[in-house]
Amino acid sequence: MSATATDAGTSRTRSWWGWGYADAHPDDAECAAMGALLPGTLPRPLPIPRVADLAIGRPGATPPRSLAHVVTADPEARASHAMGKAYRDVIRALRGQPGRIPDLVARPTDDQAVADLLDWASEHGVAVIPFGGGSSVVGGVEYRGDTHEAVLSLDMTAMDRVLEVDTAGRSALIQAGALGPVLEDQLRPHGLTLRHFPQSFEFSTLGGWLATRAGGHYATVHTHIDDFVQSLRVVTPAGTGASWRLPASGAGPSPDRLFLGSEGALGVITEAWMRVRERPRHKASASVTFTDFHRALDAVRAIAQSDLAPANCRLLDPGEALLSGASKDGSSVLVLGFESATAPVDDRLATALELARDHGGHGGTPKADTDGKSDAAVSAWRSAFLRMPYLRDGLARMGAVVETFETAATWDRVPALIDAVRTEVSAAALKATGQQATVNCRLTHVYPDGAAPYFTVAVAGRPGDEVQVWDEIKAVASDVLHRHRATITHHHAVGRDHRPGYDRQRPAPFALALHAVKDALDPHRILNPGVLLD
Amino acid sequence: MSATATDAGTSRTRSWWGWGYADAHPDDAECAAMGALLPGTLPRPLPIPRVADLAIGRPGATPPRSLAHVVTADPEARASHAMGKAYRDVIRALRGQPGRIPDLVARPTDDQAVADLLDWASEHGVAVIPFGGGSSVVGGVEYRGDTHEAVLSLDMTAMDRVLEVDTAGRSALIQAGALGPVLEDQLRPHGLTLRHFPQSFEFSTLGGWLATRAGGHYATVHTHIDDFVQSLRVVTPAGTGASWRLPASGAGPSPDRLFLGSEGALGVITEAWMRVRERPRHKASASVTFTDFHRALDAVRAIAQSDLAPANCRLLDPGEALLSGASKDGSSVLVLGFESATAPVDDRLATALELARDHGGHGGTPKADTDGKSDAAVSAWRSAFLRMPYLRDGLARMGAVVETFETAATWDRVPALIDAVRTEVSAAALKATGQQATVNCRLTHVYPDGAAPYFTVAVAGRPGDEVQVWDEIKAVASDVLHRHRATITHHHAVGRDHRPGYDRQRPAPFALALHAVKDALDPHRILNPGVLLD
Repeated sequence: MSATATDAGTSRTRSWWGWGYADAHPDDAECAAMGALLPGTLPRPLPIPRVADLAIGRPGATPPRSLAHVVTADPEARASHAMGKAYRDVIRALRGQPGRIPDLVARPTDDQAVADLLDWASEHGVAVIPFGGGSSVVGGVEYRGDTHEAVLSLDMTAMDRVLEVDTAGRSALIQAGALGPVLEDQLRPHGLTLRHFPQSFEFSTLGGWLATRAGGHYATVHTHIDDFVQSLRVVTPAGTGASWRLPASGAGPSPDRLFLGSEGALGVITEAWMRVRERPRHKASASVTFTDFHRALDAVRAIAQSDLAPANCRLLDPGEALLSGASKDGSSVLVLGFESATAPVDDRLATALELARDHGGHGGTPKADTDGKSDAAVSAWRSAFLRMPYLRDGLARMGAVVETFETAATWDRVPALIDAVRTEVSAAALKATGQQATVNCRLTHVYPDGAAPYFTVAVAGRPGDEVQVWDEIKAVASDVLHRHRATITHHHAVGRDHRPGYDRQRPAPFALALHAVKDALDPHRILNPGVLLD
Repeated sequence: MSATATDAGTSRTRSWWGWGYADAHPDDAECAAMGALLPGTLPRPLPIPRVADLAIGRPGATPPRSLAHVVTADPEARASHAMGKAYRDVIRALRGQPGRIPDLVARPTDDQAVADLLDWASEHGVAVIPFGGGSSVVGGVEYRGDTHEAVLSLDMTAMDRVLEVDTAGRSALIQAGALGPVLEDQLRPHGLTLRHFPQSFEFSTLGGWLATRAGGHYATVHTHIDDFVQSLRVVTPAGTGASWRLPASGAGPSPDRLFLGSEGALGVITEAWMRVRERPRHKASASVTFTDFHRALDAVRAIAQSDLAPANCRLLDPGEALLSGASKDGSSVLVLGFESATAPVDDRLATALELARDHGGHGGTPKADTDGKSDAAVSAWRSAFLRMPYLRDGLARMGAVVETFETAATWDRVPALIDAVRTEVSAAALKATGQQATVNCRLTHVYPDGAAPYFTVAVAGRPGDEVQVWDEIKAVASDVLHRHRATITHHHAVGRDHRPGYDRQRPAPFALALHAVKDALDPHRILNPGVLLD
């Protein structure tokens, strides 16, 4: 197999240590300029780490000859599969202390190869870590144990085809290893789209989205990838199975829902029939400003409780609004967007704007756009959004601590939760670094009964101790979430980083059930050890 | 405890052997008149069965004194908890051969009593059959085994309170034993509604809906009760737990989705935080006729694939349309209804009607109704709909075989599936009885990627062998569904009657997982034995 990390369909090289494409990272001068804005950063950026400097030993296991063609021990491949892309991962790579480097990387091309790899791994006590785009920000794709003979990273990206399209039935059978652009490119000729656009869109796969219950494009109604699943095919150490293609069923507990969110710990999702849709022909968007963030929350709640179903309903607090250029006067900004393949959406936007104004919103000139192109403001926001992780890595090179975390809670808890996160996380950051932190918030997804706040933290002041600083801040953040009964994750998944919060949140009977399922499907406990359960 | 079967809040007596209220059953003359329309029926109706004629023995187990106040061995109570309300149940009662009469009926008033009952039952090998309104049409609430010391029917209807209402957050904490009208009566003063209106609305409980993934009011988008669940509280033999109130979460596989559809085999749902909503203020409806049923299917598909989200989108085939009085000329009829608490729905109806006309639909004068009352046609349909099971029981008294079954399939399969069911089920009924059967079809719920057809079968001709006749017909129907990869049930649940179809449909790894969960949560296998798994 090839060990190059260039993406299919592009000639761009993926960064082994940081976000996305290597050529998209800010250069040293940009890093220094960003660092100058944050007190306590380094005088010059940390050097970009090199695989050659890593101590990569000989693999602790050798696959059978029959599987050799899909397995490599190439150091570059192994290094780039050692971790996900959390801040914690990036800074560890920059500091020369990455997570455990896997012994082997496999890139199977069919279900049989996946099954054979699991058989071999079960027999030889080799940990298998399913790996899609590797964009986990919760320690979802690294090995932290010491009880396995060796570690195999199971890279699914060679299985990246749209195998079948049912145009009339708005469905497509897609292999799990397809990255976002790869699957959209194959759907486009059919006039169809999955319309699942997480921030990691370019660098994450359908299988990764399904295994982590990713949150996507739609701010309301069908917010998670879960809702677009028609059927799943899963290979487990105990056997392979596929659910039937069904628009809905009431036959027993949903078999798919057990594997959605299973994070590679119960089986390997190899393909899925997904519900796709026509590309939207009607779009309209507008933004509204609020002088009072809490009144803005009320406005968003009213819109979420209407049946207007905006595709975008993103509330930025003053800090987020400032950072993204949406507002410079300390206002909060609500960005509303509607889209439809069927009918004009101007009325829905107008009604939503009325609701926003009823709650103290100002402005909001609709930008109708019926030819399907985004307006300039939305494009600008989207570019900034996609650029954000690269800037985070640039700041990491300056010894800053920059990370995000997200949650969801019912409306009765949202205002106090956001206030508490701001107060307590700022205090924790100050305590850890001696510096004032930036803590911003936006709502990414909203529901009739609650919302999903997303927080960004940036602080510097203890270069060299970045991991410890972040772990201290994160522990406080997780504790705030727990006390406010806000989920440990709305769409970033559990991985290894969220285990303490997840373990506290999970109902006891479900924990028993999950352990039982693990024993039944993965009796040798080779699949993504430490994720979801021990 | 009281053994009377009168409903709280009404003075009406529930039928122990048939559907609903005893005083709502057609009288002998009506039964005879209906029977006269169906060749092969009896000359006069079977007598209404009496509990006194049943051989009800002494209970095979005695509960401890501490639980005596919630347990009864009263024959009337035991008889009325022996079976659900399928045709098969009704005819068995009429023929004096009901299912196994439970030894005891418990009506616990709190979680602790439920847990204590499960402890006692686990220790003494007593089967426990969770029982809500007892309206199962799939053998979901009877005991068919012979490996337990005794059988306890766990009637949850004493736990029927709305415990908390979060008006701003559109949520309510509701005990699982609340019947439909009981919970709606408690929500109404808050201006809220769950809006889950299955045909069994008056005679089924929240807990029953959750345990069987009931289908409800909405024909599109949020069709199943699953989508309205914020959190569940479940008592299992291995312990009690509740999920957090969350609008959404991405933390591992959904804990609630494992218990939704578990049909009392994994635990007893005792309460749930449910998403409720404002009562609709805007409504509009219309019906469209089609001379070609297959073109009507295309119209429905186009509407389901739009984002118009009708609350009602019910397609009646010519037989159904005739029976319900919607059309007398052999047309198919599509009934469309829209509702909203936020904004007028006339535009959405108009767009849907355009789509229907594009596919050959005729007529469709919108009946806007912004004061929230239904129009006459919808009222008439609803009355007929609610009356249907009583008429079924009247025909059963005439020795007729009258039953329904339902399914769901992707659009590519729907037309051939419906044709095959009509042909093959008619042939099976003719073979079994020598008489021509009526086989009608309607679509109850529709999706962008498929639809849920609902079939009604009526035939007579072998009075005395009704159970066998139905079993022969049902076996053929289930076989057709299986060959067309249509689910064994869209919203009637699996129970015992659908086990063969369910077992064939369920993916092998999920079957392994389900057995493992059963062992973990119900190690003595006392909970609803035979449902979902053995």
